[in-house]
Amino acid sequence: MKKFINAVDDVLTESLDGFAAAHADILALGGGHKFIQRKELKQGKVALISGGGSGHEPLHGGLVGHGMLDAACPGQIFTSPTPDQMLEAAQAVDTGAGVLFIVKNYEGDVMNFEMAAEMADGTMSVITNDDVAVEDSLYTTGRRGVAGTLVVEKIVGAAAEAGMGLADLKALGDRVNKATRSMGVALTSCTVPAAGKPNFEIAEDEMEFGVGIHGEPGRRRAKLEPADAIAEEICTAIVGDLGSAAKGRALLFINGFGATPAVELYLMYNSARKFIEAHGITVARSLVGSYVTSLDMAGCSITLTMLDAEMEKFWDAPVHTAALRWGM
Amino acid sequence: MKKFINAVDDVLTESLDGFAAAHADILALGGGHKFIQRKELKQGKVALISGGGSGHEPLHGGLVGHGMLDAACPGQIFTSPTPDQMLEAAQAVDTGAGVLFIVKNYEGDVMNFEMAAEMADGTMSVITNDDVAVEDSLYTTGRRGVAGTLVVEKIVGAAAEAGMGLADLKALGDRVNKATRSMGVALTSCTVPAAGKPNFEIAEDEMEFGVGIHGEPGRRRAKLEPADAIAEEICTAIVGDLGSAAKGRALLFINGFGATPAVELYLMYNSARKFIEAHGITVARSLVGSYVTSLDMAGCSITLTMLDAEMEKFWDAPVHTAALRWGM
Repeated sequence: MKKFINAVDDVLTESLDGFAAAHADILALGGGHKFIQRKELKQGKVALISGGGSGHEPLHGGLVGHGMLDAACPGQIFTSPTPDQMLEAAQAVDTGAGVLFIVKNYEGDVMNFEMAAEMADGTMSVITNDDVAVEDSLYTTGRRGVAGTLVVEKIVGAAAEAGMGLADLKALGDRVNKATRSMGVALTSCTVPAAGKPNFEIAEDEMEFGVGIHGEPGRRRAKLEPADAIAEEICTAIVGDLGSAAKGRALLFINGFGATPAVELYLMYNSARKFIEAHGITVARSLVGSYVTSLDMAGCSITLTMLDAEMEKFWDAPVHTAALRWGM
Repeated sequence: MKKFINAVDDVLTESLDGFAAAHADILALGGGHKFIQRKELKQGKVALISGGGSGHEPLHGGLVGHGMLDAACPGQIFTSPTPDQMLEAAQAVDTGAGVLFIVKNYEGDVMNFEMAAEMADGTMSVITNDDVAVEDSLYTTGRRGVAGTLVVEKIVGAAAEAGMGLADLKALGDRVNKATRSMGVALTSCTVPAAGKPNFEIAEDEMEFGVGIHGEPGRRRAKLEPADAIAEEICTAIVGDLGSAAKGRALLFINGFGATPAVELYLMYNSARKFIEAHGITVARSLVGSYVTSLDMAGCSITLTMLDAEMEKFWDAPVHTAALRWGM
């Protein structure tokens, strides 16, 4: 295992310490290392909290700040955070207007956020499940929540910043999730530090279509194909799943899994965009980068969100987080 | 070779096409794929142009835009751009106030930018050579220019935006370069698509201290060490080389080489910051991410720039590029 670490048990806390020090103008750690919270809370705004297993950075901590999340709860690597993390985070950032949890659909995450919701007052939840690759997976009943979660957090975050109420934010989050589809492809496995060896085996000439962000099995194992063919298979699944909704303006998001450099991500963007536009969809907004990662996995996912005018407005609204920043 | 590509010969053009389409609000391709230029030129501003071999993305194309570069010339992967690329770029973005070339110290780059400077009127050049690892390297006489180049481009870019003249910009660029030191460490090699195999061999338990951004040999091959020890060796070299200048306020920049995920980069930031601050230097500004990459190399570099008040002001100034954006 080749990683920049000191001791396996300290990876998360030391990385969080570095993260908080590097972005002290935006955020701070709370409760030791239990949660990352926005430095300056906005009174009367609905608080947005997300979280999940670590190893997907910059999701979610890198999305804490003006116009996105008020707090993020990092679990151990690929392990759900605990209900007390979420409860403490909610108590720390709730300014009286209620709390919306944004939860990727994994059994542990959903269960623990539900327990936190029962203990806290005035919370609602949006469950993201944008991954079209498979129904029912290693850690999931139904579809997995993957990179589309960032899109939900951005749009709902901007709406919360603009003063939208809790119930409307939940409805908006559900609507964005429903308009969003993703699918990934892995070229290599990732290695969890505590395991010290690759999460799964994959041959030198193979890739895994529909891989999950923890290396969960996808749709099929295949020989490596050209980028255009990979983009076509993924986009066909996405557009097919959207059905009649696959028209109009869209956000196209190419997400790296951690070990894939920008030169390849932009090439995949080029391949995906050609396919999407050939299907009569207008790529109105774009995001390319490693935002929802799987440690050191080589690979990427493609996310498409069909935009309505309100969603597009909130996507464009100012944001100031460690990983996403514009307009301020 | 596991990469998202179609054909080896098309990697650069397809990636540039994707890049330009994803960031059409900021930049456009010029002369086919000869250069990337800022979409809206500012009349009367000194034009800043950089460039170099591709494979280091987002450097330099991702740094084109308001407050940084006016154009970037991408060579083939790990190959210098040609003088006609630089000349065409200069003709396209010079609005009459002259052109400053910012050039990483590699023999091919320096020679070709010099030839372009001879053909164009009113140009000056800043040569960056921030890498303390080695004197005279595979492609370099003297020290190599590496991640510190981004710092030069940001600070000089802001000054140009603010209306500073050509000679003063050159002096400022030279001053920033002189205040900047970098050194890298590789955990794996990178693979150039046209070669199809790793650029160099490195054992499963080894790392290369002082590696160049093309995989050039560094100071020494060593067994993998804890992050703190790696940071200490690199920072000792940097601080030692700065000598009496190693005091006051600094920018600490942890740069990923392409295949190292954020969780490790922030952990390295934590290790480096502890060391730097223990030496009485104030880490006043921070940057953590994969900005000056070496294709799919796993590894990182540490850059330290000793800041004066003017440099800090220009670092903080608004910037709107694909890779760096704040204040607007």
